[in-house]
Amino acid sequence: MLSKNQVKHIRQLSKKKYRQESRMFVAEGEKVVCELLDSGWKAEAIYAAREFKGIPHTMVHPSVLDKITHLSSASPLLGLFKIPQYDVPLDHKAGFSVALDSIADPGNLGTIIRLCHWFGIKDLFCSPNTVDCFNPKVIQSTMGSIARVRCHYLDLAPLVENYGSDVYATSLKGSSHYVQSFPSNGLLVMGSESHGISETLLKKIKKQITIPNLSQGTTAESLNVANATAILLNEIFRPQ
Amino acid sequence: MLSKNQVKHIRQLSKKKYRQESRMFVAEGEKVVCELLDSGWKAEAIYAAREFKGIPHTMVHPSVLDKITHLSSASPLLGLFKIPQYDVPLDHKAGFSVALDSIADPGNLGTIIRLCHWFGIKDLFCSPNTVDCFNPKVIQSTMGSIARVRCHYLDLAPLVENYGSDVYATSLKGSSHYVQSFPSNGLLVMGSESHGISETLLKKIKKQITIPNLSQGTTAESLNVANATAILLNEIFRPQ
Repeated sequence: MLSKNQVKHIRQLSKKKYRQESRMFVAEGEKVVCELLDSGWKAEAIYAAREFKGIPHTMVHPSVLDKITHLSSASPLLGLFKIPQYDVPLDHKAGFSVALDSIADPGNLGTIIRLCHWFGIKDLFCSPNTVDCFNPKVIQSTMGSIARVRCHYLDLAPLVENYGSDVYATSLKGSSHYVQSFPSNGLLVMGSESHGISETLLKKIKKQITIPNLSQGTTAESLNVANATAILLNEIFRPQ
Repeated sequence: MLSKNQVKHIRQLSKKKYRQESRMFVAEGEKVVCELLDSGWKAEAIYAAREFKGIPHTMVHPSVLDKITHLSSASPLLGLFKIPQYDVPLDHKAGFSVALDSIADPGNLGTIIRLCHWFGIKDLFCSPNTVDCFNPKVIQSTMGSIARVRCHYLDLAPLVENYGSDVYATSLKGSSHYVQSFPSNGLLVMGSESHGISETLLKKIKKQITIPNLSQGTTAESLNVANATAILLNEIFRPQ
């Protein structure tokens, strides 16, 4: 059984403020919990409603998981993990990375983390107003990739200004991504679907690229930001 | 004011069964409602909590919209639209189309409809067990593109067997999409993330393609199906 205080503590971790204070977050589901454990992330506790082989856990009644879940329907496995501390990488010549400016939707951030993992990107830079990567919905939509990609929250302007290799921004006025060739090291900056990259940040980036809209004048307004990131990473990692 | 019966009718339209019986669906938000009207879709009623220029609407108190919304928070504009009837296209030499096998997630279907619009694809074929395209969450995530892409629900096996141009399937054992060249007419079949394309359907498709996993053995399990579709459509529509 969990005490009332333990239940309260876990429930409060759905809020960013409490996660930051306690340096803890909640991960749910076998896939995500296993990925975190396999990657050496430290679990403070793991609660399960049934046996999970190879995962150290405390058995609880399903009704307990219903009380502490951060999702609309509880998974039979819930882990309480420590938020890791990462150093921001200073070597910008170790491949391509992605930076996100003001991405508010948790599903989009989660999917982009999963994309980074797929393409072997180790570091993801997020503007401070981008949704927290330990938000329950983000964790869920990473499908475990949160364990493989380090998310750094920082002011993107100095990062872009001092970046040691080429920086690319998506904008409406750039050259087509189909004709752009990309080096092996660099940074791709993506902005929010509704507002794009903030004007002050965009001014600092000379290389601007656009995904051509083929909707033939019928107002396809924008691509989903995760889809646009997928298309551009596919180009960046195209074998020579 | 809306009568109790009107409120009940609109609320019931969140369920597929009622949408199919009444041939009506609900669209919310200015962007989606405008796109539908601009594309000539017939609205039975449009309710608004404030003035919207150029949109014929009935003013209601915001509390009415709170009652009838299908979303977690109501938009100030809600339209009740007729579900259109489309003929399944028999000419398979009019560009590329997409077919979806067992896509359950409404957000993924909505995003794929938006992608089709972006790439100028007019017809999307869905297996009968794919989530309904008039589901409120699908409508919402199309951002209005539902007005520009015709969704056809049908058994994919005969479609694939009798398709008049090349059919491509995504599978784990196909050739890399980077080396594949695509003709101007064809059909791209995408399966669900968890189960892929059903085995019986996959057997009927000779041209199989794979997006190479660059995660360097750290178990990036699969790409989100909308992201995978984005990557492949980007290749298919690459200028020669």
